[in-house]
Amino acid sequence: MSGTVYLVGAGPGASDLLTVRAARLLGEAEVVFHDALIGDEVLRLASRARKVAVGKRCGRHATAQRFINKQLADAARLHRVVVRLKGGDPMLFGRAHEELSFLERQGLRVEVVPGVTAALAASAQLGISLTRRGSARSVTFITPRVGHGEKESGWVAAALAADTAAIYMGAGEAQTIAAALIAAGKPADTPIALVEDASLPGTRVQYAALQDLPGLPTSGGPTLILLGEVYREALLEAAPSSAPAPRPRQPQAVQE
Amino acid sequence: MSGTVYLVGAGPGASDLLTVRAARLLGEAEVVFHDALIGDEVLRLASRARKVAVGKRCGRHATAQRFINKQLADAARLHRVVVRLKGGDPMLFGRAHEELSFLERQGLRVEVVPGVTAALAASAQLGISLTRRGSARSVTFITPRVGHGEKESGWVAAALAADTAAIYMGAGEAQTIAAALIAAGKPADTPIALVEDASLPGTRVQYAALQDLPGLPTSGGPTLILLGEVYREALLEAAPSSAPAPRPRQPQAVQE
Repeated sequence: MSGTVYLVGAGPGASDLLTVRAARLLGEAEVVFHDALIGDEVLRLASRARKVAVGKRCGRHATAQRFINKQLADAARLHRVVVRLKGGDPMLFGRAHEELSFLERQGLRVEVVPGVTAALAASAQLGISLTRRGSARSVTFITPRVGHGEKESGWVAAALAADTAAIYMGAGEAQTIAAALIAAGKPADTPIALVEDASLPGTRVQYAALQDLPGLPTSGGPTLILLGEVYREALLEAAPSSAPAPRPRQPQAVQE
Repeated sequence: MSGTVYLVGAGPGASDLLTVRAARLLGEAEVVFHDALIGDEVLRLASRARKVAVGKRCGRHATAQRFINKQLADAARLHRVVVRLKGGDPMLFGRAHEELSFLERQGLRVEVVPGVTAALAASAQLGISLTRRGSARSVTFITPRVGHGEKESGWVAAALAADTAAIYMGAGEAQTIAAALIAAGKPADTPIALVEDASLPGTRVQYAALQDLPGLPTSGGPTLILLGEVYREALLEAAPSSAPAPRPRQPQAVQE
């Protein structure tokens, strides 16, 4: 009789932004396999569990994924509650598919526990809705990151077609992102909000125009780029004096 | 000295899919203003609070919104913890903007607590990622519902440009949605998953082709339409024998 593997969304970072179900399962877990970026405060909720860091920050090779799959299956044959903890939500850029289908093929029980994704936590923090009655009724979540053996896909078109875009895992590719969007026709002065470490004490928010995105300083933590007219008012408030002047090539404003 | 209004995401429905922070604030709240669709199990978490139902299921008039705004402000001047509870997440189709900006203009403290949005809960339940390595790297959240005095906006274009689309508040408009997407060039056999009451005990999932969406029976509960090739495998598994035959005009499969 084997146990259940729970693919659990750890939410954006703050330990009280896990769901009640996720917190309960962490408390019951005997083993927790977690991404490298999961914070200590969240991991402490798994007080009884052996904790195994398995995620890799940049890319993931097929070999590594196969090894994670095998570890999960082995643990499910030994323990009642096995948690696979992923940042944000498992079904949105969480790459849960490989693990889910492997475990199901092995005849093991798997359940997915959804989480608060970074774009929603960032929006709560900014106090700016992703959608707004009358002006923004579609929002696209995209990542420009290309994995091993993947072809580039239509993230630029998806970003252009929606009123608001949330770009995940775009840190370090700011130059490419801004150039691709502007080349495709997105106005260079489209407002963006760059949010680092959303929901955590050290979080940082910078408002700028899209053309100035490449010049914004970043600290290397999890970064989300939000893009759309809903950020226009905040951009103007952050740098009111620069609004009528020609737009400089450096950051518009830094809010901490 | 006035209190704080917390705009809190109630999540998809199940009471243990609230965040830990949301559950704590409900327990502390003296008044809770909640949408009509919030379930009893969630409301019971607000054990000390006076509960006021304020949401309207279909459309919201400016007068009603002004009355809600005033109730929130009045409550914040009397109580320490006032919760405005909204289904899903407040910043995604939650229309938090009017309430946030009104309360801020009144000089009152407002905080937003993010929640698990329905598309993530539905994906967890289906065991199918919204995004999948190599095949789906963008997902659009849209609503075709047009509010009072709003012009129709580009939800169709946004749905077409993304790999996966999650259509909120589309129940009752299945015919319009399917016709608009197919007319704009979305293949009529694009797989969809229609998820009602995601995360709740009475939840129902139906897989079908986009052209068959208008014929699917629905029960009137909160409904989410998920659209994209990531649902192809589930559609084929749900109705394997119909795959090679000419596609009939009725529902492909019902899973409960």
